[in-house]
Amino acid sequence: MEQTAQTPPLSDTLPDDDTGSQRIRTNFMSDNVGPVCPEILAAITAANTGDAPAHGDDAWTARLQARVSEVFEAETRVFPVATGTAANGLALAALTPPWGAVLCDESSHIFRRECGAPEFFTSGAKLCPIPSAEGRMHTGLLSRTIADLQAGGQRLSRPAALSLSQATEWGTVYTIEQLVELTILAHDAGMGVHMDGARFGNALAHLGCSPADATWRAGVDILSLGATKSGALAAEMVVIFDTTLAEDMERRIKRAGHLWSKQRFISAQILAWLENDLWLHNARQANEMAGRLARGLLRHPGALLPFDTQANEVFAIMPELLVQGLEAAGYIFLRRTAPPGVEGTLVRFVTSYDTQAADIDALLETLASIE
Amino acid sequence: MEQTAQTPPLSDTLPDDDTGSQRIRTNFMSDNVGPVCPEILAAITAANTGDAPAHGDDAWTARLQARVSEVFEAETRVFPVATGTAANGLALAALTPPWGAVLCDESSHIFRRECGAPEFFTSGAKLCPIPSAEGRMHTGLLSRTIADLQAGGQRLSRPAALSLSQATEWGTVYTIEQLVELTILAHDAGMGVHMDGARFGNALAHLGCSPADATWRAGVDILSLGATKSGALAAEMVVIFDTTLAEDMERRIKRAGHLWSKQRFISAQILAWLENDLWLHNARQANEMAGRLARGLLRHPGALLPFDTQANEVFAIMPELLVQGLEAAGYIFLRRTAPPGVEGTLVRFVTSYDTQAADIDALLETLASIE
Amino acid sequence: MEQTAQTPPLSDTLPDDDTGSQRIRTNFMSDNVGPVCPEILAAITAANTGDAPAHGDDAWTARLQARVSEVFEAETRVFPVATGTAANGLALAALTPPWGAVLCDESSHIFRRECGAPEFFTSGAKLCPIPSAEGRMHTGLLSRTIADLQAGGQRLSRPAALSLSQATEWGTVYTIEQLVELTILAHDAGMGVHMDGARFGNALAHLGCSPADATWRAGVDILSLGATKSGALAAEMVVIFDTTLAEDMERRIKRAGHLWSKQRFISAQILAWLENDLWLHNARQANEMAGRLARGLLRHPGALLPFDTQANEVFAIMPELLVQGLEAAGYIFLRRTAPPGVEGTLVRFVTSYDTQAADIDALLETLASIE
Amino acid sequence: MEQTAQTPPLSDTLPDDDTGSQRIRTNFMSDNVGPVCPEILAAITAANTGDAPAHGDDAWTARLQARVSEVFEAETRVFPVATGTAANGLALAALTPPWGAVLCDESSHIFRRECGAPEFFTSGAKLCPIPSAEGRMHTGLLSRTIADLQAGGQRLSRPAALSLSQATEWGTVYTIEQLVELTILAHDAGMGVHMDGARFGNALAHLGCSPADATWRAGVDILSLGATKSGALAAEMVVIFDTTLAEDMERRIKRAGHLWSKQRFISAQILAWLENDLWLHNARQANEMAGRLARGLLRHPGALLPFDTQANEVFAIMPELLVQGLEAAGYIFLRRTAPPGVEGTLVRFVTSYDTQAADIDALLETLASIE
Repeated sequence: MEQTAQTPPLSDTLPDDDTGSQRIRTNFMSDNVGPVCPEILAAITAANTGDAPAHGDDAWTARLQARVSEVFEAETRVFPVATGTAANGLALAALTPPWGAVLCDESSHIFRRECGAPEFFTSGAKLCPIPSAEGRMHTGLLSRTIADLQAGGQRLSRPAALSLSQATEWGTVYTIEQLVELTILAHDAGMGVHMDGARFGNALAHLGCSPADATWRAGVDILSLGATKSGALAAEMVVIFDTTLAEDMERRIKRAGHLWSKQRFISAQILAWLENDLWLHNARQANEMAGRLARGLLRHPGALLPFDTQANEVFAIMPELLVQGLEAAGYIFLRRTAPPGVEGTLVRFVTSYDTQAADIDALLETLASIE
Repeated sequence: MEQTAQTPPLSDTLPDDDTGSQRIRTNFMSDNVGPVCPEILAAITAANTGDAPAHGDDAWTARLQARVSEVFEAETRVFPVATGTAANGLALAALTPPWGAVLCDESSHIFRRECGAPEFFTSGAKLCPIPSAEGRMHTGLLSRTIADLQAGGQRLSRPAALSLSQATEWGTVYTIEQLVELTILAHDAGMGVHMDGARFGNALAHLGCSPADATWRAGVDILSLGATKSGALAAEMVVIFDTTLAEDMERRIKRAGHLWSKQRFISAQILAWLENDLWLHNARQANEMAGRLARGLLRHPGALLPFDTQANEVFAIMPELLVQGLEAAGYIFLRRTAPPGVEGTLVRFVTSYDTQAADIDALLETLASIE
Repeated sequence: MEQTAQTPPLSDTLPDDDTGSQRIRTNFMSDNVGPVCPEILAAITAANTGDAPAHGDDAWTARLQARVSEVFEAETRVFPVATGTAANGLALAALTPPWGAVLCDESSHIFRRECGAPEFFTSGAKLCPIPSAEGRMHTGLLSRTIADLQAGGQRLSRPAALSLSQATEWGTVYTIEQLVELTILAHDAGMGVHMDGARFGNALAHLGCSPADATWRAGVDILSLGATKSGALAAEMVVIFDTTLAEDMERRIKRAGHLWSKQRFISAQILAWLENDLWLHNARQANEMAGRLARGLLRHPGALLPFDTQANEVFAIMPELLVQGLEAAGYIFLRRTAPPGVEGTLVRFVTSYDTQAADIDALLETLASIE
Repeated sequence: MEQTAQTPPLSDTLPDDDTGSQRIRTNFMSDNVGPVCPEILAAITAANTGDAPAHGDDAWTARLQARVSEVFEAETRVFPVATGTAANGLALAALTPPWGAVLCDESSHIFRRECGAPEFFTSGAKLCPIPSAEGRMHTGLLSRTIADLQAGGQRLSRPAALSLSQATEWGTVYTIEQLVELTILAHDAGMGVHMDGARFGNALAHLGCSPADATWRAGVDILSLGATKSGALAAEMVVIFDTTLAEDMERRIKRAGHLWSKQRFISAQILAWLENDLWLHNARQANEMAGRLARGLLRHPGALLPFDTQANEVFAIMPELLVQGLEAAGYIFLRRTAPPGVEGTLVRFVTSYDTQAADIDALLETLASIE
């Protein structure tokens, strides 16, 4: 292929730092900027052998079905798809009719960051954001929102789904007790419970309990479980504990264009991710690196950490000068305006399964050297 | 990982015929049952180097943009997604408002085989199937359908999109002249033109013209171009020639859950597929094998071929006894009830980039030996 | 109010023929061009007394509920709305999920004349038109369509609803036996049955059986029952026989903007329409006038009647010269292009509850005098 | 018709207080519980003369078109429908694509009280509620919400529509200056501006300016204008100032089942409502009665009025004992839980065009007599 003028040569953008032994990760924008985990890439290659029935009738998907039930110690139904937004949308649509309401934290990804995907997948259900301080919903506000909707009877949207993010969007993690309190409220109101587990592995690594304890035993009916941010190429899944919700799920998936003809290549990724607890291993590494970064930032006089660092996201409020210093040194991360009344800039660093202690230490050293 | 009782061991379902040199392909169900082409798998592996910006801001996607414009000799906008159903739905939604009508052949994939995906992506546009004999729409019936809708004014759905499948669902291919006649009618009525090119490469290989001649020069405004059936893992794209249709397309894609965070891994597949005309090479091989099969079937006294074999699908009407004989010999293919008044069973064989002459000859020998 | 230049003075468009005793109806375009029946207008005025709870909690709506159950000799749920398109859309949405298929006659109003309303109300269900000769669906083609969809399993839309128009769009009426054959097929396939009864009264008047016999006893689960074409101002209703379908129906209605705050004014119309069998009286008058017209046309050498006239619509194929003659004489009616291969113009005359024998005779005399 | 056991006799529920000269209105639940204004009922009866073209091609609708342009001193397009929820949904859908965002006050009817209708009509646009103190949006929070969405580029919903309620849901009224500040922000961001004018007449009566000044001259692009709460039977309209938004509006209306075949009967209502400024007369009466009630409540030591009474809704916080006393006396009104930290019960009284001073005085006397 000839290079055209407007084509950026690949070499410009690919890292050329693999010549030395000390590649330093500078991109903390998200846990989705990294490469595919070697074990998972190998599984893709291994699955590329001969013909296989299309659309999920393959052996890998059958194994995945069994494997996930095993991992969650329950009869589950699992549906692999390529993106977390799709998994969330499909899961919510299984819980709510188009005239229902989805109650979610106001910081939630489904409310803030998915460009209306939940509204699209549910054919227009209403999202009701509930304010919270650090991404964890309060039972009191949940109760009140449910009561308000119920008071309207058939004139208002039916409260149909409670959606909880675990880990939350602010890097915190619900305790099991907190989950149980919320899910009891939801079930008592006839609602189903969705968990957005884009970073469920990170939450689980923090909680140290079993996958079953963190989900269906705590009242979760349907889980979006993400592997992409944890080393997969493109692999997420809808895990259904209340199996009545699985009815026609394949039709929903096909209709949304999310049924891969060569589905073995998603299923194989997830099988590898679950094999030998790779998913937990990856989550622990990311969490540890976030903890290392948080501890380092706490030691810095200029940084303020508004939330506990319980998973793999670190939020800090820092003077603009420090933020610009890090950017000037080549670090990439998210900036947000600080909440009203707070001085400084709110920044987010996300660590990943392939973040190393040296990466964190280098960042902290850079920070220390500013000014 | 321990094997549970209900888990099918992988070895049962994986082909074990790679010990000898004579692996015979027996699965003619579709061109999506085969493995990923080595060049494309290698490109995925090669793309797995270091960090890359997420959501399509990577260098591979930028190159893809340039490369597709080059291939089509025009300023195009290209949006890679994982499935053909998604590509079709997104393309149609760019052409029609929810209260519009999509005019399509009654045999079309969008009407018959996508579980309502076009209705989903377009937020409920009306699909108007138009009868045809061999998958190619007649200008007379198209004219009449347009006129009927227009006569209803604001009381009826606005004729908004014409969707043509190239190659068609019956394995035939529109000539450029046929395309032009139809697209002129559509444009004169203020409609946009979509081409479902799930097997566009096969059609192009048959036509022997340039990609530009077969698309925008023939009046196509937006193309779903499929690589998955031609050797990719999961890679399709929406190619937009009328670039005003690209407005907000990324929002549509994100909202439908079709924006990959690690998009470089779709773009890299397509780049490899286009490199050194691999796509055309793969299409030619599939077409040739279909032709070899068609010629073989024509020589068999029991088989009747209702359509010209112009791409990589062969349709035959055969006595049920022959069909069952092939099935008993392990061959896998699609069965459909024959049209009213025709005796026998209608079957479909699809060849692929990795079908070999020996595979076809073995099938024909088996057929000859039945009874 | 001052007359502005562009305002058409009302007197121009209002009939000025009430000076003599012989007002002649010339508008046979549809049964919705006529005035409101005096009994129904009186009921509206009578309902305008004091305050009443809003949104259907009024006494008129409660009475309507009881009255409709009485008329249909069954526990029904009835939901009054203002238009037939809304009633159809709401009824279909109660039967099919967004990924389901609605099987209907290709001549049906829901497929041809509602600008995509069924797709809108059902959030994008697929409409599958089935060809027929005179508006009555064939069991054979229905069976085949169901079987095709079922063969696709979870890859294709679920056959969810059968929709039958009674009277049909071609002015014919299903016999009870024909209905039963079709509804058994649908129920056996797990589908629900909708009847589009925009002209149900006319069909009932033709059949001469009880409302129950013509609906739920013949397998109908949900009925759109129209009063507007039969003398109401704006009054239609969804009558639900399978009362499980009524769940959340009020939410569907509210969400579609079809819940009137002053609902007593729809309910009062329908109560008056049902009172003293006004609805059947009106239907009989319209049917008789259609029959009179049909008999008259049959006596004319130039007219050909392609369908039996069983309700209040008369279709005729006539030389263009006759058609233009009627138009020149001031008659208003629908024109359609004749089916391929037939010479002449297909026209439709619709009679109404307030069509008089003199109106028909005048039309026939005019026709006889042409040329 | 025979009375069945379960049928409530009409006389039970109809007011029997017309025997004396002093009928007292006790229902302050909403301004939609009252009867139809005599002038409007007369107009309906007057329109019932002979045949008229269906679906809005009648003379009344043509006049309405001209009349509304006259009232608003601009070339407008007006579309009459039966409910305010429909008018709002249709208007919003004209402003936002399905992947857009509608920015609205958190107290707004479209967000809180329409059972997801805006999501339905817009095919799933995202509603973004913005907090406010008394129903009037703050420019600062609007700016911030717009900026947040824009910062997400194509990954987030496009800010497409600003929706303002005039009068607001808390009975307050935006000044023209406040409107202008907000609409400038919206237009600068490429958004369109919707005004929910279910009680626009009441706001206008408060402002004392021209309809033009209160709408398009203040930056409003599209208005839902309600007559039902102000004396009509069922009559609302979408008034379009930016006439490019009118494209295909009739198709949207038909598709939503909101196109009446006998549309003259909506148009005639609105014509009568606008005739001789009946709409303003009705609004002024309702406003005055609300003012009288507010002043009376302010004199009561137990009542606290959280908002200025600027239209026809009075909100009061009262000890539960008073509330129950009023209820015991037969008064009907809305109860809401008071905001957190406030003791007492929040109640709402809505006055109407037919509320009389005696009604208010009777209520105040009852209140004074409690305990």
